[in-house]
Amino acid sequence: MLSMRSHYCGHLHLAHLDQEVELCGWVHRRRDHGGIIFVDLRDREGVVQVVFDPERPQCFAEAERLRSEYVVRVRGRVRRRPAGTENPDLATGEVEVVAHGLEILNRAETPPFPLDEYTEVGEEVRLRYRYLDLRRPQMLERLRLRSRIVSTLRAFLDGHGFIEVETPCLTKATPEGARDYLVPSRVHPGAFYALPQSPQIFKQLLMMSGFDRYYQVARCFRDEDLRADRQPEFTQLDIEVSFMDEREITLLMEEMIRDLFARVLEVPLPRAFPRMSYAEAVRRFGTDRPDLRIPLELVDVADLVREAEFKVFAGPANDPAGRVAALRVPGGGRLSRKEIDDYTAFVGRYGARGLAYVKVNEAARGREGLQSPILKFLPDEAVQGILERTGAVDGDLVFFGADKAAVVNESLGALRVRLGHDLGLVEHGWRPLWVVDFPMFEWNADEGRWEALHHPFTAPRCDDPEALAADPGAVLSRAYDLVLNGHEIGGGSVRIHRPEMQQAVFRLLGLSEAEAEEKFGFLVRALRYGCPPHGGIAFGLDRLAMLMTGAPSIRDVIAFPKTQTASCPLTGAPAAVSEAQLRELNLRVRHSG
Amino acid sequence: MLSMRSHYCGHLHLAHLDQEVELCGWVHRRRDHGGIIFVDLRDREGVVQVVFDPERPQCFAEAERLRSEYVVRVRGRVRRRPAGTENPDLATGEVEVVAHGLEILNRAETPPFPLDEYTEVGEEVRLRYRYLDLRRPQMLERLRLRSRIVSTLRAFLDGHGFIEVETPCLTKATPEGARDYLVPSRVHPGAFYALPQSPQIFKQLLMMSGFDRYYQVARCFRDEDLRADRQPEFTQLDIEVSFMDEREITLLMEEMIRDLFARVLEVPLPRAFPRMSYAEAVRRFGTDRPDLRIPLELVDVADLVREAEFKVFAGPANDPAGRVAALRVPGGGRLSRKEIDDYTAFVGRYGARGLAYVKVNEAARGREGLQSPILKFLPDEAVQGILERTGAVDGDLVFFGADKAAVVNESLGALRVRLGHDLGLVEHGWRPLWVVDFPMFEWNADEGRWEALHHPFTAPRCDDPEALAADPGAVLSRAYDLVLNGHEIGGGSVRIHRPEMQQAVFRLLGLSEAEAEEKFGFLVRALRYGCPPHGGIAFGLDRLAMLMTGAPSIRDVIAFPKTQTASCPLTGAPAAVSEAQLRELNLRVRHSG
Repeated sequence: MLSMRSHYCGHLHLAHLDQEVELCGWVHRRRDHGGIIFVDLRDREGVVQVVFDPERPQCFAEAERLRSEYVVRVRGRVRRRPAGTENPDLATGEVEVVAHGLEILNRAETPPFPLDEYTEVGEEVRLRYRYLDLRRPQMLERLRLRSRIVSTLRAFLDGHGFIEVETPCLTKATPEGARDYLVPSRVHPGAFYALPQSPQIFKQLLMMSGFDRYYQVARCFRDEDLRADRQPEFTQLDIEVSFMDEREITLLMEEMIRDLFARVLEVPLPRAFPRMSYAEAVRRFGTDRPDLRIPLELVDVADLVREAEFKVFAGPANDPAGRVAALRVPGGGRLSRKEIDDYTAFVGRYGARGLAYVKVNEAARGREGLQSPILKFLPDEAVQGILERTGAVDGDLVFFGADKAAVVNESLGALRVRLGHDLGLVEHGWRPLWVVDFPMFEWNADEGRWEALHHPFTAPRCDDPEALAADPGAVLSRAYDLVLNGHEIGGGSVRIHRPEMQQAVFRLLGLSEAEAEEKFGFLVRALRYGCPPHGGIAFGLDRLAMLMTGAPSIRDVIAFPKTQTASCPLTGAPAAVSEAQLRELNLRVRHSG
Repeated sequence: MLSMRSHYCGHLHLAHLDQEVELCGWVHRRRDHGGIIFVDLRDREGVVQVVFDPERPQCFAEAERLRSEYVVRVRGRVRRRPAGTENPDLATGEVEVVAHGLEILNRAETPPFPLDEYTEVGEEVRLRYRYLDLRRPQMLERLRLRSRIVSTLRAFLDGHGFIEVETPCLTKATPEGARDYLVPSRVHPGAFYALPQSPQIFKQLLMMSGFDRYYQVARCFRDEDLRADRQPEFTQLDIEVSFMDEREITLLMEEMIRDLFARVLEVPLPRAFPRMSYAEAVRRFGTDRPDLRIPLELVDVADLVREAEFKVFAGPANDPAGRVAALRVPGGGRLSRKEIDDYTAFVGRYGARGLAYVKVNEAARGREGLQSPILKFLPDEAVQGILERTGAVDGDLVFFGADKAAVVNESLGALRVRLGHDLGLVEHGWRPLWVVDFPMFEWNADEGRWEALHHPFTAPRCDDPEALAADPGAVLSRAYDLVLNGHEIGGGSVRIHRPEMQQAVFRLLGLSEAEAEEKFGFLVRALRYGCPPHGGIAFGLDRLAMLMTGAPSIRDVIAFPKTQTASCPLTGAPAAVSEAQLRELNLRVRHSG
């Protein structure tokens, strides 16, 4: 090894007995015991015990100066620890290094928090001292695993003929792009670049250029509020291929993800990922990114309550935009009043105006065996039908959602996940799922126009621009999302490759030819010069790393994440700049008020 | 292969004889000959000839519709080309595919320029139709090679224990950073992020966190005028290591570069790269990035002309900041008056006020055998001394530079390179060179202060802050540049790891403690908590790719480069944005004039 050391601390074991070693690292802990100094020496590979013996007075005197986080270089000999003093919790716990040389490379002030895995430290302090926070073995391990995730994905793609191409971060600003960061230029004062939300257009152009298989680990930007799992800059594994359809693309991508989990986590994922239509996912789970580890499902019961006098149910049941669904909770009969109230408040956050339920105490006794505030409003057949359809048995509870479909889906979908966790129903392991057959368009009733469910380059499942225009709401797209344990980790589609279809879609979205030209002219012109059939996908690497490392937050797999507070000089909020800087950019800050 | 094709066009050869194949690609050329249609079908791997025979009338009729750049899918059988019709220029030239199925996947308008390697096309047109320009095999090949360069470098680093860590693009703006792009935020109107010129501070923090070996293929930004070889965004292979000194770092890096050239170009680089001090490089070649392929050297002759009456030489020869140097040009005696005038104009661009020369016709005849406008101003011993020291022989010419040292170095350094190319003296091959022993500081006489030759985190070759302050001009730094064929491809240094030394350097650079705190407080505070000895390097990947692919410009190894013209909607200059967008950012464009 070409460095000041012969070994990493964490790599030493019995095979090194009696070897002379040189180690570099940090003083993790120092203990003085029986006139001897014991130092746990730490580097990125782990910790080893170093022993300083007063029989070597010079070295011992130097060791007496050591304090936590001092940086040192040690020369010594590896020996077996005395019987009874082995540390089975430590990979190096059977050996120790008897030092005969010590060089203090740097001193350290006392860190503001202990660098172990056990101490809970507030995030603000962690970020202000990020260089210390990242010394904690857990953080280092997460970022190392992230590095392995990326290199494993790259190796797969390199091995499958993909060409990595870098696309620009500074792109031309467009009049739209409400979430684009704008970048004023000194060289062209008053003019702006934009930071891309994704390399979408560039990668499609590369397909038109015949690159055939492209990928990039691309930094993307979105000028939006921070949320728990969202950073203003994020990293995407961006992929595009030509001459492949959605079946071929998704099969190749699931091979890649299987390869990733096998190599990095040594976990076998299913040989074929299940596929589910958007419609089925929403019907059964209230969401297009269902967590299949949770064995709870929504069941439609509108037909059973349509005639009921209970308006709360009958209203939505008779509304074409409404939904009435039941969610059976096995063993939910033991939920307390208080718990049910909590869940009622919880679904309220998603717009639900209440949370009806039925507890099944003794189904055999009919109505008498049930317990529910709404029982009296429902006819016998409805109650019986609901029990049969949900499969509820004694000890279960059935929750209901009745409202606009969107509200029912969101609220019961969220409740399903929460119940899964609260009741310990979440199965162990990884449950990937392709969600497919998305609608091409959604009707925006407020603005009276069609909107694209994905981006406007997504191909419809129909080849005829006229058929598309005839009934836009009925057309499915050739999009696909990869969902893992309830998180969307990737999304993509086959793209439109014929200019007539692209124009038809723009027209349906209400873009005039001039607007389409202004916004997407480059792409539309390029389509005219021989564009191959193509499609692609993008994976959110931050989220994938969060899932695979088991990190509690996306900020734990980003070395220097952004925060709302200005406490951390490097990762904090943006700052005011000087008048001179603004003048160079030909800009002025408006004075509000 | 999981796609609509069974093979790539360019992969077919005799081993595929009689196989049924499916190909996808572009119509590169169509020829009709003897009632048969021949199509050169192109994909990224190459071209193969496809034959459409009227004996299959349906397929033939479809083929009659084919035009250049149509996208097609062909089914056919591979056969040996008839004797005498093989094409040795084509990798697939021994075979052809007899089509029995043809599907037109997309049509194409006639491209604005032919997509071959032979046609010269103006850069403006190339960029406006970049998606077509990139179809040209040469461009595709360059970008593929670039992709291989990056993946080979990554493989080396992954294999040597380096951890890839992504650092932020959106960082906190500082009052300095005159070349930082500033990014206003919608979420914090009136406040700005800055795009980093390099991840320097972040990678040093990662060393303080114990990552030990870090790398990143990092996008960097510089808000400066475009030049021939400079883009406002560029890509850097950024590396940092702990517990290694400059010798260890440079040895590991040259191992990496050797591995790169061996794998990608199959070229063996020298087993040990030569090393040269900054002083020697400037003395012998007038520059700190000498092109060692050119066997011309500057020779100091000030001592020989110090007593001459010729003020043009004697002035600089007696000026401590002056330099008088000779450049022997073997065979330069045949340069014409016109050529010498051109070179005089050339060095004028670098500030030289003339270009004295001596032609050696017959040295044996003494002065009589020489030809020079300045001969009469120089004493015999000076002339004799110059001929001896430069080793000039009959048929040679000696150029002179006499001025401030900086002017002589720049002008004769540039002339040396130009002469090497003009006279065909450039040796074949790759000549790497480490330039080391840079001065730590340069005196800025105009502003009366010391400036850092590298960045202010570079370690001096002296450990004592007081010694440093005593004679700053004499201190060398622990920096190193890797030069290849006259281009600086990488540069780095061992960094300061002790807070006292960092403070001393800031003081020497004229930064008050408060200013240092404001600009670099984060780093200086971090140094106090146990910073390991560390250092690193950054390689300019765009330039490396340009050199390794033999591309004429850096823009030829960037898929979507920036230009000054607005002709290309995606790669062009920045644009004005709307009033609404500015309002969201709390900004106003100043109206000049």
